[in-house]
Amino acid sequence: MYKVDLNADLGESYGNYTIGNDESIIPLISSANVACGFHASDPSVMIKTVEMIKESGSTGLGAHPGFPDMMGFGRRYMDMTAEEVRAIMLYQIGALEGIAKTYGLKMNHVKPHGALYNATFQDYDLAVTIAEAVKEYDPKLKLMGLSNQNLVKAGMEAGLEVRHEVFADRAYEDDGTLVSRRKEGAMITDTDEAVARVVKMIKENKVESINDNMIDIQADSICVHGDGENALDFIREIRNAFEENDITIETM
Amino acid sequence: MYKVDLNADLGESYGNYTIGNDESIIPLISSANVACGFHASDPSVMIKTVEMIKESGSTGLGAHPGFPDMMGFGRRYMDMTAEEVRAIMLYQIGALEGIAKTYGLKMNHVKPHGALYNATFQDYDLAVTIAEAVKEYDPKLKLMGLSNQNLVKAGMEAGLEVRHEVFADRAYEDDGTLVSRRKEGAMITDTDEAVARVVKMIKENKVESINDNMIDIQADSICVHGDGENALDFIREIRNAFEENDITIETM
Amino acid sequence: MYKVDLNADLGESYGNYTIGNDESIIPLISSANVACGFHASDPSVMIKTVEMIKESGSTGLGAHPGFPDMMGFGRRYMDMTAEEVRAIMLYQIGALEGIAKTYGLKMNHVKPHGALYNATFQDYDLAVTIAEAVKEYDPKLKLMGLSNQNLVKAGMEAGLEVRHEVFADRAYEDDGTLVSRRKEGAMITDTDEAVARVVKMIKENKVESINDNMIDIQADSICVHGDGENALDFIREIRNAFEENDITIETM
Amino acid sequence: MYKVDLNADLGESYGNYTIGNDESIIPLISSANVACGFHASDPSVMIKTVEMIKESGSTGLGAHPGFPDMMGFGRRYMDMTAEEVRAIMLYQIGALEGIAKTYGLKMNHVKPHGALYNATFQDYDLAVTIAEAVKEYDPKLKLMGLSNQNLVKAGMEAGLEVRHEVFADRAYEDDGTLVSRRKEGAMITDTDEAVARVVKMIKENKVESINDNMIDIQADSICVHGDGENALDFIREIRNAFEENDITIETM
Repeated sequence: MYKVDLNADLGESYGNYTIGNDESIIPLISSANVACGFHASDPSVMIKTVEMIKESGSTGLGAHPGFPDMMGFGRRYMDMTAEEVRAIMLYQIGALEGIAKTYGLKMNHVKPHGALYNATFQDYDLAVTIAEAVKEYDPKLKLMGLSNQNLVKAGMEAGLEVRHEVFADRAYEDDGTLVSRRKEGAMITDTDEAVARVVKMIKENKVESINDNMIDIQADSICVHGDGENALDFIREIRNAFEENDITIETM
Repeated sequence: MYKVDLNADLGESYGNYTIGNDESIIPLISSANVACGFHASDPSVMIKTVEMIKESGSTGLGAHPGFPDMMGFGRRYMDMTAEEVRAIMLYQIGALEGIAKTYGLKMNHVKPHGALYNATFQDYDLAVTIAEAVKEYDPKLKLMGLSNQNLVKAGMEAGLEVRHEVFADRAYEDDGTLVSRRKEGAMITDTDEAVARVVKMIKENKVESINDNMIDIQADSICVHGDGENALDFIREIRNAFEENDITIETM
Repeated sequence: MYKVDLNADLGESYGNYTIGNDESIIPLISSANVACGFHASDPSVMIKTVEMIKESGSTGLGAHPGFPDMMGFGRRYMDMTAEEVRAIMLYQIGALEGIAKTYGLKMNHVKPHGALYNATFQDYDLAVTIAEAVKEYDPKLKLMGLSNQNLVKAGMEAGLEVRHEVFADRAYEDDGTLVSRRKEGAMITDTDEAVARVVKMIKENKVESINDNMIDIQADSICVHGDGENALDFIREIRNAFEENDITIETM
Repeated sequence: MYKVDLNADLGESYGNYTIGNDESIIPLISSANVACGFHASDPSVMIKTVEMIKESGSTGLGAHPGFPDMMGFGRRYMDMTAEEVRAIMLYQIGALEGIAKTYGLKMNHVKPHGALYNATFQDYDLAVTIAEAVKEYDPKLKLMGLSNQNLVKAGMEAGLEVRHEVFADRAYEDDGTLVSRRKEGAMITDTDEAVARVVKMIKENKVESINDNMIDIQADSICVHGDGENALDFIREIRNAFEENDITIETM
């Protein structure tokens, strides 16, 4: 019997712009990483997202803070000081929690978004800044980061509960970091392969790197995408595979 | 023996842009209305502002949410729906409280900024939307609004504690609303006159309108400006006048 | 034999956010109103849009400046001064022309977007400000505005060539202004009815108002939507109806 | 007899936020690098700035495009693609030229701002992207970049006229790049020393690095600051020194 969390980045619409199938996806996952208005979303979208999560009754609410770059969707690295990163963390987590508590909802975890997440792969100081900010904000919040990498390490160092995240549709380097989207082979496009990899990660704590090496990985939470045409189908397939493999989905 | 609150809009710097003398002014007032990043401020500025308020030990912390219009400093009316106004209220209050609670500071009150404040003079529905949002967020927050006008009325209707705000340096219409800054005579530029008016408002609950009529006013809190060359001098003069007139400054 | 221009608001994607089917629609219309980065679009999107318009070879390029309100898609009125409106007009037109001229493309017309367009229905001074800004920028630019209303009037007064715009899918008030989207019946949802109305507007210069009165209208350019599921189908139907009715589509 | 251009970054106010003494400084310099609304400024400020430059009669107008990061004043590196950098260059230059041509003013040069400028020190590809964008926009525009470094090299490679810029108040590394502001000794704070260094750079094409090595430098244009308390005094001192040393100030 295995347990795993299924998470997705959500609430990424903005004003007149719609991204994702949040309404369909929220009931199928166990943790929602909700954009906080800096790289995506706005106050009205955040409210709708929180309402849907509350409605679901079971999906855990997490803050998904990002760089202040709506035009770049938080995917462009910005060279901010530690003080600035700490400030945008506190601000965004607070903004989401303000809305959540208005709806009687607790926040469960924090997962940095996009370039803020990826930059920690090489920058342990940044990971520490993020972990410390989460701890200062609320030491009961869980920190989600790439499995076995800096963010979870810094989180543990800070005394936070952490969750090791793995990606269903991303290739891994030998060191356990994600292959950059700019490289060929970065995405696992075959659904069956992606599902099989995830099951292996959960049951055997192993994944094959882009160089065909078997590396160790801890799979507390699986990241699936909420947008794209096949998002829903993929989530359903992964849920089917979980049933067949005695893997239970549980919020962290 | 009279008691009054002295408030100022603060924390309005933004990135490389500095406005105001917050460090000098915070110890001289009893309530700080802190910009929340939509019409002014940014997460780093909000942190510095909260730190200064905490340092002061006595100044009450309030959220000062505004329209999402940095370029217009929140002074341009934006025709938002009630849902949108509610959303930007919850978001901004939450963002500030997130920072405040990280510093162990409680939030005391909410005062809308600029055009969001002024638009309530003629738009009771907007005042209700604002009051309801504050109540939903936290019914213990006090709502500050123009003395005897829609915002405090809507706040009382919603069951909130309210604070009637008066302006030291602004002229009043006969109906108790502020004379628009675009009109001549909108500003009381003579310090002695401004101080005398404030003292009269506190002790007699009266103020002379721009048309030379004596109107009723309730002065729970006096708004003074934190920027401008003479801001500090003016606050010191008003504090001197309060001492002479047996008026005690107390946070609300 | 009748001639008419077919226009659509385009280039409204933003960063990671996609709106519309620009690639399919541009070859089917004769004038493209291109968002300029304030209410929608960004520099990269503007470049892609200009490239597609250039590719089309025949579609006229127009600037579609709006209020600086990405979150509200330029649909929320902002109370800006005449100086501010003039400034955002010059800035946005210049930004688009800078890109267009890099691609060897001339700009043909200007059409304000959303609330900036709609606000002129009741505010002639705003219409004058817009018309004067276009004239100052380049007196050879054509100004497109709601048929017979303030914008085209102010444009003519300023000495600009104007284009009377009509809407295929919007209901009209008796005075020739558009029925607000907030009112019931604002949208003509039946395609056949919408097409028939447009043909009548072109051939008879008449349209039935929401109150069943026949009003005068001049149809130099028909606005069709570039987004929404049925946008392409609708444009094809209107083009078919034009063929049957001897109406030629020509850029203005 | 020596000739040199004296340039300053200007037009950096934003909405209610004021930076700099543009009105006083513009008549004292020969080239103004005008912010274009991404890292600083807004359309109204740009208009005021262009009006002042026109008024001066002699100061050359240049575009000063930066990263889209108002909160960071364009001083934080953003990891944008070449296509994105090209797009923000064209957009910002176009926006400024649109305003300039409305006032009958020609644009003379382009100088990237802040992190966009500094990042070229180590990133030749970025320098090429910037130079190519300027050339595509208008091959008659001059490109200003750090003396003897990538930006002027890429500009020459692209066939643009370039201007080698030196800094009066910044220390230099041995390789001719600027010492990072984060390092000690980055700023030359002594006015006499700064003036002496500039004169030496102009007359002898030499400057002493932070490691006390004498390095080659070409001083086509001297950058002075427009903000800060002593900006005006410093410019006057430098102008005095120029007179004494037979150095004429001329726009490039």
